[in-house]
Formats: sequence, C-alpha cells, structure tokens
Amino acid sequence: MRISLPLALVALTSVPAALLADPLPSWNEGAAKDSIIAFVDSVTDPDSADFVPVKDRIATFDNDGTLWTEQPIYFQLLYAMEVLRRMAAEDPSVLSSDVLKAANEGDMAVVMAGGEEGLLEILDVSHADTTPEAFKTSAYEWLTTAEHPATGLPYAGMTFQPMLELLSYLRDEDFATYIVSGGGIDFIRAIADDAYGIPPWQVVGSEGRVSYEVIDGVPTFTKGGGMTFLDDKEGKPVGIMRHIGQKPIFAAGNSDGDFAMIDYTTAGEGPGFGLIVHHTDAEREYAYDREGFIGTLDRGLDEGPDRGWTIVDMARDWARIYPGH
Amino acid sequence: MRISLPLALVALTSVPAALLADPLPSWNEGAAKDSIIAFVDSVTDPDSADFVPVKDRIATFDNDGTLWTEQPIYFQLLYAMEVLRRMAAEDPSVLSSDVLKAANEGDMAVVMAGGEEGLLEILDVSHADTTPEAFKTSAYEWLTTAEHPATGLPYAGMTFQPMLELLSYLRDEDFATYIVSGGGIDFIRAIADDAYGIPPWQVVGSEGRVSYEVIDGVPTFTKGGGMTFLDDKEGKPVGIMRHIGQKPIFAAGNSDGDFAMIDYTTAGEGPGFGLIVHHTDAEREYAYDREGFIGTLDRGLDEGPDRGWTIVDMARDWARIYPGH
Repeated sequence: MRISLPLALVALTSVPAALLADPLPSWNEGAAKDSIIAFVDSVTDPDSADFVPVKDRIATFDNDGTLWTEQPIYFQLLYAMEVLRRMAAEDPSVLSSDVLKAANEGDMAVVMAGGEEGLLEILDVSHADTTPEAFKTSAYEWLTTAEHPATGLPYAGMTFQPMLELLSYLRDEDFATYIVSGGGIDFIRAIADDAYGIPPWQVVGSEGRVSYEVIDGVPTFTKGGGMTFLDDKEGKPVGIMRHIGQKPIFAAGNSDGDFAMIDYTTAGEGPGFGLIVHHTDAEREYAYDREGFIGTLDRGLDEGPDRGWTIVDMARDWARIYPGH
Repeated sequence: MRISLPLALVALTSVPAALLADPLPSWNEGAAKDSIIAFVDSVTDPDSADFVPVKDRIATFDNDGTLWTEQPIYFQLLYAMEVLRRMAAEDPSVLSSDVLKAANEGDMAVVMAGGEEGLLEILDVSHADTTPEAFKTSAYEWLTTAEHPATGLPYAGMTFQPMLELLSYLRDEDFATYIVSGGGIDFIRAIADDAYGIPPWQVVGSEGRVSYEVIDGVPTFTKGGGMTFLDDKEGKPVGIMRHIGQKPIFAAGNSDGDFAMIDYTTAGEGPGFGLIVHHTDAEREYAYDREGFIGTLDRGLDEGPDRGWTIVDMARDWARIYPGH
C-alpha cells in the first residue's frame, strides 16, 4: 500500500516555529508534561544514574483510547459492522445470532449489551475468509473516508495530537515506539504507518488464525475465523515478550486492560515510566472511566498514583485533542 | 543478560586490512558471491529499476544449518537432552517414554528413530516450568561452554563465518536482518545478539505457551508445556506475516523447511533473492541433503535453480567455515 496520508507530519509542521524547541507543544505546562520530559532526560543523559542505552529504549503504547478515540465504541467494531452490513446485503444468512442482527441494523444498545463476547463474534464473522492485504486495503479505505458520527472527522484523523508529539519526541530520543493493542494486528497495521509513523513490525495486537499456501503459483495468506491470541490485560506483557522479547521502559495506556503492561514496565529494577490517559474531557472528546466496558479505568485510577504513574487529565493537560483541530 | 561474547566482531576485525573493501571476504570468487553482490547493488542503487527503499529492505535467515551447524542434530535438542539429564537425576519419573529414556541415556539412534515427534517431546518436557529469563541464562551458559562432540568448539562458536559477513554486509546496506527459525524463539534469543548481532525483536521462531502473572509483587512469565506456533515450512511465511507484517526481499535457508519462506520471498512482483546453503563439505563441516530428517534438502535442490535461487556449495564457495578457524 503506497497511498500517502501523512496526518502526523501535517500536524507537526503546522506548529508555530517559536514553539519548535518544545518537544510537546500541545501539552499544557504542568506535572504530567514535566514528568515525561524529566524521565526522558534522565534515561538519555549519559551522565545520569538512570541512563539507558539506545537498544533498551523501548516504549509501548496502547491504541484505542490512548493514541486515538475509542468512543462511542472501538473503531474496529464500527468497521466490522460496516463489513457485516455489506456481507448481509449479499447473503442474509450470515446474521446467525441476535448480536449479528443488531449489528447489521445498527442497534448499538443490543450490540453493547452483548458485551465483549458479542464484539468478538462480530469481529470474527466480519474479518474471516479474506487475505491480510485485502483486509488492510479495505480497512484503510474506511478509516480514511468514513466519518465519525460525533465529529464528522475521518476516523484516521481522530488520533490525539499530544500523543503524536510524544511518539515523535521519544523517537527523536532514539526510543523504539511500539503499539501494543487489544485491537486486531492487521487492522492497526492498515493505518499505523500513516497515522503514527509506526511500521508493521512495531505493531503488537490480537491475532486470528492465518494460513499460507501457494494458490495457482501465487503465495496466498488467508485470515481464518477464531482468535489465536488476545493481546489484552495479562496478554499484553505476553505479547511484548513474544514480539519484542524485552521489557519496555515506557508504557502508556488508558484502561485497566493496560494495567498489566504498565505494571510490568514500571515494577522491578531499572527506570520505568507509566502513563495513563484519563478521559476527562466531555466537551472536546469524551469523559468516562469506571463505568461501562469500553476503556474501563478503575484499578489504574486507584493504584496508579501510588505506583508513580503519571495520570494525564485530558481536559487539563492537553491544549489540543486532534491534529489541526 | 549482559555477558559479552562478541564472536562475530572478533572474527570480522581479524580480517586482513587489505580485504576490508570486500564485503564478503570468506566467500570464494564465483557465481554465488557475484549473485549476492549484484542483487544488493541493484536494490540499493537509487538509479536502479529494482531500487528498494530502506524500510522495505527486510532479510530473513533460517538458523539451524544456515547460520550455524545443525549436525549431528539440532543444538537445541542437545541442550534439551542435557536439561533432561539434570531433571532425571533429581526425579527419574520424568522419563515417562522410550524416547525420553533414550535421550537421558544419550542413545541417539533411538532418539533419531523417534523422528520429529520424539524431538518435540524432548523439547516439551525439558523446556517447561521455567521463566524465559532463567531459560535464556541457562541456554546461554550451555551454548558458550559445552563442547560440540566433533569439533570441540563451543556451540556458539560454530556459526558460519561467511554468513556472519553476509549479515553484516546486508545491515551495512540498511537491511533489517531477521532470524526465522523452526527452533524455539527463547533458545535463539539467548545467543542471537552475541552470535549474530540480532536483537530479540528480530528473532522469529517456534513458540510455546507463555503466561504472565504477578507473584509476590514480581512480574513473572512462565513457560508452559506445549507448542503454540511451529515456525517451519508453511509456518515460516505465517511467522513472517505475524512478526514482521511485510514480505522480505532476501531469504536464506538450507532445507525444505525453508522452501515456503524462500518461495514467498522470490515469487510475485518486485525484487527477491533466494539463497540455499548446500552442505557439501564433509571435511570441514558435514555433507548431507536428501536423506535423513535433519535439514533435509530435496525440493530446494530440484526446483530452486529454476526459480533463480542461489545454491551455495559450501565446499566450493566458502573459504572458511567457522570464525577464527
């Protein structure tokens, strides 16, 4: 895929020149911004006791709710519902359960009532029997053209400008920046390079069955049904161990699904920075934490501060939310 | 792990200065060496029709028999047998099958007769109920101190000098060099950085169950029994898709277990280089191909040349085999 949508680049180059010395211009002055910069300074200064060599500067980021919006529901689920509608228009028998029927009719109340299990069923049915390449092309097309119901922005345009700056800042300081998401690895890879400057090999996500065979002389991968790896909660450290093979020194998330990853990063010896994006901004984005099952943040709020994690108050700490907005 | 064993570095810096302009000094002049250099030139020259941008310069290497010796049997199996002997000395009941008993007694004939299934049983029993960190420390210790029965060299010293040069050459030309091995990912990661200059996140291998939990406040991974992913044959392209997410442009192997990976790399559009190490050197290493089940090379010899793959004749093409020897 060679279509170019350098959202992050456009956003960064539109920053006034006078602010360029500030690596995080969309972060308001305060404890959150200070703690990030102090940590980066301490691990990159060769004279610091906490100095970390370049090869060990690994940073991991959750995606939904951390790098982009995850309301009214995960973007991948909205995409899955769109695919399901297309499938049902051709063959209504695909709607074999109440949750699938509700998804087809856009009845979000019933979809949400189906909980995580219902979501997985919708993802499963809509994401099977395609190639990763075709899937990524389709997801990319949708992410860059379909409009978010509340903002009217393309979904790919709803990345968080302050987090894009944080990714760039860390990379400028020779960190490797990984996405470690509960979302599907192929879905994220479809947009990660354009949206975040993150190549496919630095995306860790949930995985479904993939098979390979040569069909009529053409090497062909096929996405099967079923999930072989769920990269959430305790699965996130496991995903990190499998893909990266080394403990990060910086981890950012927004929900209790990220607790284990951040805990793993900050516990034990050596420097480790934990960051939680707290969605407190009902006006510019969304305000939610302990309720519901999208991005539930409970334990992180209770235990994060005692562990020295930085809790970012979106309304207070971020001067802007989306690039160019 | 911070123990330093820069084998590759020592070997490379011991090359006479007059030869430094030659990126592959341990390769004899001939078609194999020429084809490698011609390919690298063609994909790195911006004026070439086959130019490949840096981010797409991905090279994948099988490990056993391609980057180091795999005879009389895979090094990982020899390590597993050593661990099994230690386990059996403490608790003989671990020897619950004929293959396990044979492995404990070093009866290689019976072990070999057990085929691939027997090998997996030995690996399974010997590699479970440990942490990846403890496992890697133990494997590293063994790889750098135990002696190979034929050469008396430490196993970690039996990497192929010409392949070390090839890895360095490709990295100097801005390739990312990955190991894609049927061997266990943790076993290879134990030595990959020291032996090959390859960091853990560029190692793709077979995977066993890994769980994560916090025990007494300590984040802890545990290797369980069973294999969750076999990175061999058609599994190699799948492993590449999962870890790297992009087609390589260079792939090297030595057995039919690598056929699918090399075929995937060289089929279809765009430049792609396939390389097979043919073990033809009974004097300096081993000579084997179509017989047996360690590194069986049959289809690759028959079909590789027609696909334009470079078949390296070890006896003819390599001036040296091991670093410093």
